Amino acid sequence: MESWATFGGDLHLDLTGRRAGGLGLRAALEDALREAVQDGRLAPGTRLPSSRALGGDLGIARNTVVEAYTQLTAEGWLTARQGTGTTVADRAAPPVPATASETAPTRPPVRYDLLPGRPDLSLFPRSAWLAAARRALTAAPDEALGYGSPLGRIELRRALAAYLARVRGVRTDPERILVCSGHTQGLGLLCGVLRERGATSLAVEAYGLAPLRAVVAASGLTRAALELDEGGARTDALAGTGAGAVLLTPAHQFPVGAPLSAHRRAAAVEWARRTDGFVIEDDYDGEFRYDRQPVGAMQALDPERVVHSGTASKSLAPGLRLGWLALPRALVAPVARLKQLADAQSGVLDQLTLAELIGSGTYDRHVRRCRLHYRRRRDRLVAALAERAPGVRVTGVAAGLHAVLLLPPDGPSEAELIARGAAAGLALGALADCHDEGAGAAPAPPGLVIGYGTPPEHAFAGALDALCGLLGRG
Amino acid sequence: MESWATFGGDLHLDLTGRRAGGLGLRAALEDALREAVQDGRLAPGTRLPSSRALGGDLGIARNTVVEAYTQLTAEGWLTARQGTGTTVADRAAPPVPATASETAPTRPPVRYDLLPGRPDLSLFPRSAWLAAARRALTAAPDEALGYGSPLGRIELRRALAAYLARVRGVRTDPERILVCSGHTQGLGLLCGVLRERGATSLAVEAYGLAPLRAVVAASGLTRAALELDEGGARTDALAGTGAGAVLLTPAHQFPVGAPLSAHRRAAAVEWARRTDGFVIEDDYDGEFRYDRQPVGAMQALDPERVVHSGTASKSLAPGLRLGWLALPRALVAPVARLKQLADAQSGVLDQLTLAELIGSGTYDRHVRRCRLHYRRRRDRLVAALAERAPGVRVTGVAAGLHAVLLLPPDGPSEAELIARGAAAGLALGALADCHDEGAGAAPAPPGLVIGYGTPPEHAFAGALDALCGLLGRG
Repeated sequence: MESWATFGGDLHLDLTGRRAGGLGLRAALEDALREAVQDGRLAPGTRLPSSRALGGDLGIARNTVVEAYTQLTAEGWLTARQGTGTTVADRAAPPVPATASETAPTRPPVRYDLLPGRPDLSLFPRSAWLAAARRALTAAPDEALGYGSPLGRIELRRALAAYLARVRGVRTDPERILVCSGHTQGLGLLCGVLRERGATSLAVEAYGLAPLRAVVAASGLTRAALELDEGGARTDALAGTGAGAVLLTPAHQFPVGAPLSAHRRAAAVEWARRTDGFVIEDDYDGEFRYDRQPVGAMQALDPERVVHSGTASKSLAPGLRLGWLALPRALVAPVARLKQLADAQSGVLDQLTLAELIGSGTYDRHVRRCRLHYRRRRDRLVAALAERAPGVRVTGVAAGLHAVLLLPPDGPSEAELIARGAAAGLALGALADCHDEGAGAAPAPPGLVIGYGTPPEHAFAGALDALCGLLGRG
Repeated sequence: MESWATFGGDLHLDLTGRRAGGLGLRAALEDALREAVQDGRLAPGTRLPSSRALGGDLGIARNTVVEAYTQLTAEGWLTARQGTGTTVADRAAPPVPATASETAPTRPPVRYDLLPGRPDLSLFPRSAWLAAARRALTAAPDEALGYGSPLGRIELRRALAAYLARVRGVRTDPERILVCSGHTQGLGLLCGVLRERGATSLAVEAYGLAPLRAVVAASGLTRAALELDEGGARTDALAGTGAGAVLLTPAHQFPVGAPLSAHRRAAAVEWARRTDGFVIEDDYDGEFRYDRQPVGAMQALDPERVVHSGTASKSLAPGLRLGWLALPRALVAPVARLKQLADAQSGVLDQLTLAELIGSGTYDRHVRRCRLHYRRRRDRLVAALAERAPGVRVTGVAAGLHAVLLLPPDGPSEAELIARGAAAGLALGALADCHDEGAGAAPAPPGLVIGYGTPPEHAFAGALDALCGLLGRG
């Protein structure tokens, strides 16, 4: 076998195997080149190295290469042209893969995506991110690029500790922050630690994000549902669950929207202290609060009992896969150990860039801009529905990127509306999908979960119009 | 560890050891400078390099140097003068600071790091990476930044499929490639799928990387060791293991070095076919082969039975946390499912950047440059040991970033040499640490595993000298 690094790239040519199979050197080279053209590794038009260079690379006589090129040119695999040397012939294209019609989706295409849980991706600050990446990578020491602490880069942990204290009232320090690959991974790591501590069950809100339920289930924990009312999750019912921890969305219940009341917060922390349990505070959109009463992080009530879990998925982009946990002291080592086993650490370049973005104040400005953008959208949604679909009750809109639309009892059902929407190219979420039946929650009222942050700006008016047309009287 | 040759003489500043001892970067620099003034290596009146120059030399941020200079000036060790810059203070022996004994590391600092498993991080192509990131992020559609396929970005999977076919002879397509967060995560996902399929044991080579053993153990799989000989792992013994899969390093056994013989490869694939099992091919350094017989990927023998696992940790940097699996068709869905549960997908920005780097040919050129760099280092290591420590037998150096040094029976033991090395500031790996006792492997012969890729270029001569001094006769 030979590797060939002459024409701007390495090419693997197996001569040794062919020679062992009885071929002479020239025949082995011809055969290997033929196969490489045939299976597309050498694309049509690719310029081959000179016979001298290839002979040198392979440690064979130049003449052998000349003879092989001549033979393959005669066979039509290669083309020899004065001045440009030898190239792969144009007609040597490999067969076309499956046609478009075979791979096309059968459902009507989505024109307007109003599914919840995603930000407006067109807001991602590409230029600012690239500039911060340049500053961060230029300043980073070499060792930052190596294997590092499973907690993540110290630059980002420092920036987050200061930011979370300032913006969310979190009480933490860089040694208690673990950078993870989104809330998904953070929750998975925490569930793993709970299992190690002997827990068999996690208390959850009766409504939540379905993919997170799958993460809990995969860890081997069962779920015990807390019903919701206007004060948020019924944490007064925790005592009966036998759970090792409770997963809450205190700032803005997902998706129903109420903030967890002070009394319920205290009850959850009290329960955790009494049972040696923990509260996991999913602060998925804590930065996007539109009213005049920002709700501080629940973690501040007891940093040794509440894990604060944050993410850049809403404020920047889900594709970054950047999240963070502000951990009680007792959980730092076990969570770090599982993170080490999972993937050693999260990617350092994005961590360094986010640290730079936060440290320079760019992140703050970006979040403010996004908050204004989403607030305007919320106002447009609420106004349009009030005018064109007055039978629909809109809730949970004091914060976040989504709204819950409770449907009138005499209208079409949730499932029917979603089907009609799909037929019209409108993607909508069902409240029932957020409802945790597996955890024994009571049935959901009919409703839709509308992600008003999802469409790009140019599509929002059309999306609103389509939604109102679907829900309205005419 | 860092060497500094800016002001007309070499000065060794050990930052790595101090950082390993728990100091932050600035504190480590301050401590190292303090010590250099104190022990006279930096004489009174010596002019220090500019913060820009020293930062550049040490690969750290200029600001960190400025802050360290400011602090040491405040403490009286240095003097800052308009026009002449920063100099060592005139009074020769400043008082020992009260805190020095409290903050100083207790272990002797590491001057030369020859631990295996890491590349020379100073080779990371920062400018090329940033340029590729700019091109990639500028070209990416908004949807690339959202939640995407757990397999990873299609741009990178396409680039990898073509690259792996060309360079390693891998037979795959983009729909069978999963981008993961390094080989660590890839192996963890595969172990999880093996458990789901009912496997209880993974066959492994009798020598391997200890952290990977922890990943296997955490999945709940036991390990069955295959002994090694000159043909590589004894895959003919697989039948007796009852394992669900075998983890191999066919291109360059880690750390012993032999490539797996053709006969042993065939035996492993044959075993996998017969038992509905799989081969996991850890191709950790397949791109760094120095002789004239590159060993193609074992995966090509049977893409439905061999998982090819690759990584950017050696070719670019471990901190990227970018790896990939070329999967048998039957494993694509179950591995993707576990990846979705683990962290939804790997970060998209680095994926897009690597795709751009591969597609533009920059990655090929970078790998070739690294190959040459490491090959020269290997040659220097082998030559120095032959001359100065002829009793040591060097093996496994036809590829990779490390060498195994088998120790003469009449010399000091492995443990003794490592302790002596540590006392002299030389970090060395023990062959015994790679030896999988837990899997029932026979005892290891005394040896050292030397990562010759680890030190930055300016420290390599010193590291070689220290190593030869330790191992040689005089």
